[in-house]
Amino acid sequence: MSTLHPIRSLEVYDIRFPTSGDRLGSDAMHPDPDYSMAYVIVRTDGSPELEGYGFTFTIGRGNDLCVAGIRALEHLIVGVPVETFFADMGAFWRRITGDDQLRWLGPDKGVIHLATCALVNAMWDMLARSRGLPLWRVLLDMTPEELVDCVDFRYLSDVLTPDDAVEILRRNQAGRDPRERELARVGYPGYTMAAAWLGFSDEQVRALVREAVAGGWNAFKMKIGADPEADRRRAALIREEIGPDRVLMMDANQRWGVAEACAYMGHLAEFNPLFIEEPTSPDDILGHAAIARAIAPIRVATGEQVPNQVVFKQFFEAGALNFCQYDPCRVGGVNEMLGVLLMAARFGVPVCPHGGGAGLDELAQHLCAFDYIAVSASLEERFLEYVGHLHEHFADPVRVVHGRFQLPERPGFSSELRSEAIAQYRYPDGAQWRR
Amino acid sequence: MSTLHPIRSLEVYDIRFPTSGDRLGSDAMHPDPDYSMAYVIVRTDGSPELEGYGFTFTIGRGNDLCVAGIRALEHLIVGVPVETFFADMGAFWRRITGDDQLRWLGPDKGVIHLATCALVNAMWDMLARSRGLPLWRVLLDMTPEELVDCVDFRYLSDVLTPDDAVEILRRNQAGRDPRERELARVGYPGYTMAAAWLGFSDEQVRALVREAVAGGWNAFKMKIGADPEADRRRAALIREEIGPDRVLMMDANQRWGVAEACAYMGHLAEFNPLFIEEPTSPDDILGHAAIARAIAPIRVATGEQVPNQVVFKQFFEAGALNFCQYDPCRVGGVNEMLGVLLMAARFGVPVCPHGGGAGLDELAQHLCAFDYIAVSASLEERFLEYVGHLHEHFADPVRVVHGRFQLPERPGFSSELRSEAIAQYRYPDGAQWRR
Repeated sequence: MSTLHPIRSLEVYDIRFPTSGDRLGSDAMHPDPDYSMAYVIVRTDGSPELEGYGFTFTIGRGNDLCVAGIRALEHLIVGVPVETFFADMGAFWRRITGDDQLRWLGPDKGVIHLATCALVNAMWDMLARSRGLPLWRVLLDMTPEELVDCVDFRYLSDVLTPDDAVEILRRNQAGRDPRERELARVGYPGYTMAAAWLGFSDEQVRALVREAVAGGWNAFKMKIGADPEADRRRAALIREEIGPDRVLMMDANQRWGVAEACAYMGHLAEFNPLFIEEPTSPDDILGHAAIARAIAPIRVATGEQVPNQVVFKQFFEAGALNFCQYDPCRVGGVNEMLGVLLMAARFGVPVCPHGGGAGLDELAQHLCAFDYIAVSASLEERFLEYVGHLHEHFADPVRVVHGRFQLPERPGFSSELRSEAIAQYRYPDGAQWRR
Repeated sequence: MSTLHPIRSLEVYDIRFPTSGDRLGSDAMHPDPDYSMAYVIVRTDGSPELEGYGFTFTIGRGNDLCVAGIRALEHLIVGVPVETFFADMGAFWRRITGDDQLRWLGPDKGVIHLATCALVNAMWDMLARSRGLPLWRVLLDMTPEELVDCVDFRYLSDVLTPDDAVEILRRNQAGRDPRERELARVGYPGYTMAAAWLGFSDEQVRALVREAVAGGWNAFKMKIGADPEADRRRAALIREEIGPDRVLMMDANQRWGVAEACAYMGHLAEFNPLFIEEPTSPDDILGHAAIARAIAPIRVATGEQVPNQVVFKQFFEAGALNFCQYDPCRVGGVNEMLGVLLMAARFGVPVCPHGGGAGLDELAQHLCAFDYIAVSASLEERFLEYVGHLHEHFADPVRVVHGRFQLPERPGFSSELRSEAIAQYRYPDGAQWRR
């Protein structure tokens, strides 16, 4: 019995970083975010004890609801040996998402799904730690059938069956080693969102973009949507700094209705944006499809507020997105990310996860590496979003060199916070908040 | 200054009814619900003090998250004179749903939107009480322009503009008085879900259906989806009791994928169901559309787990539902219900709200009366779902006579719980839970 590790307890923390003071993260719908995490540590009995770290991301108020959401899931796992879950991570996922009373709060969306994501990712972190491997390597070591078994196909199989998914994974097995060596050598491409938050001044933006070009970045995103003339002025400024060949992306953060989005982007086409992100409500699949048809060749990106794989399925089916930007803290953890990656491959849509926030890059880098090596087999128009702040609070932070994410090497999902960060930013009693 | 009424406080209660013991409410995905409410009382200063009552509905675990969600909205209204809100209920709705940090938890879905609904409906209840009128009458007394101003058209105007909506309301003004007299005389038609929960025995179902026929009911819904043979047997039994002309509806509660739904309903077509409700994921708009095309003339109903008007918009656009079953505790309160009713009228889709639960009928009856008198102007294939339990806990419960809901007459939204109910069912410290 000493080999079994029953889950003993969940420690859950409300962590908030006071980012709003610097307008970091500001956009057309969220002018003053305080980047926050509902953070969970899962511990086991057994010898040696095992630990897993997970979190969801929010932008401040309401983070306590996600903390409570994680606690509401506790009864589904405490006392169960982790070996039971590790032997069938698909069954584990269905258990966590299938509580017959809690599912009324979603299903698979909002606070309870954000909480689910934290807990699911904590268990994947524990699994990877228990094997002494980084998460991306754990995924690569699984057979196509084992990977596909992690995904819930109940509502996906009209567009992607388990057999289709196995076939996608099999056909890419040949080139895996060279792709892995390539990532180990040069890293996974990123784009930077660190230079053009809506609340920054033009001078700030110019200086930051210039610095980023010098640092090796080739792709840049700017926030737009609050003022058309200011957006044109700023787009011209950034184009001037980055030249015609580097990539410029734009992000409206849901500011418009369908007709407004089409009109607004007409006025920005001359700056040759690769895509417009979140031109309208993240719930409006058909609206995104109409915008995509109207503004081509500018393309449409969305996903950071798309709650689950069933909604992504329809974005793919309807041709409503050209870039899939799932958020690694919003969909239901690694299991749903796998479902999204497989559907994206089926529809030939590049995946560019939502990064930044607090710890989003730390998680997404693992899925990006796995996606390239085993699923998409392509880096064409794939980038992981990079925002430069808050990485110092993580035990195994992303390493970005010349605009590329270096392969993580330490065991786990890079999801562990440094204990000093907890002591400093715990809300409302951490040292930073007591001041 | 004595005429102003600043909002003083929110009292929020976790109310749970132990319904799972009787299998009341049991279906294919929710075998053991404990019908619950996150209940809020809004009080003001000023003289006389004003009160408003609102709630959201859940099925047990997680109700505490909705309680916390309501508290998280408190800062948006406390201290504001209700007169400010009453003068512009559209601005009030945008304020409650527009908190730039909280919206990350949705937007407009899950726990935070369930909480929003409770608070929004409490304010409409207060508005109606302050005028000494039932809510349906308050809505009828508003001009088309005033009503339309309550709705947020930001993401709707590609299918329905404010002008379109005004036009719908204007064209029905002629026949309003006769329709109101008709409702006052005979009431709004209902259907009963009280006879065929999944967990009931065949004998129980037969006895209950027979009793309901004798009581004047003409429309019946049964839960299906757990066992095809049992469903056929039970459908035959109910048809035998109700005869060929009364209406039979079926409800699968999201049990199937798209292909399974089509196959399963093929085996039940001979029992001539009016519709199949929730054949698949409530998020799968395109899946519902595919099922609707495949199983015609059986039609598709859904809505009790559709989170907001933007998702409903697409259900209408895609021809994905033939009956709109919004839940009066899930969409964002009266304002979003108005948006849904107006879109349904635009697309010619009958609205049959989700009833039952705890207090859902008490709320929905007001919107049904308003819908018939001012929006749809039709009773064809319109029914409000009825479930017979828990009404006794309300201060102004529904009155159902011969299968029809009688027009509510008391001031407000019929949303107030009797104080004994709070004392008995407060969780976990009410008398019923301490036993």
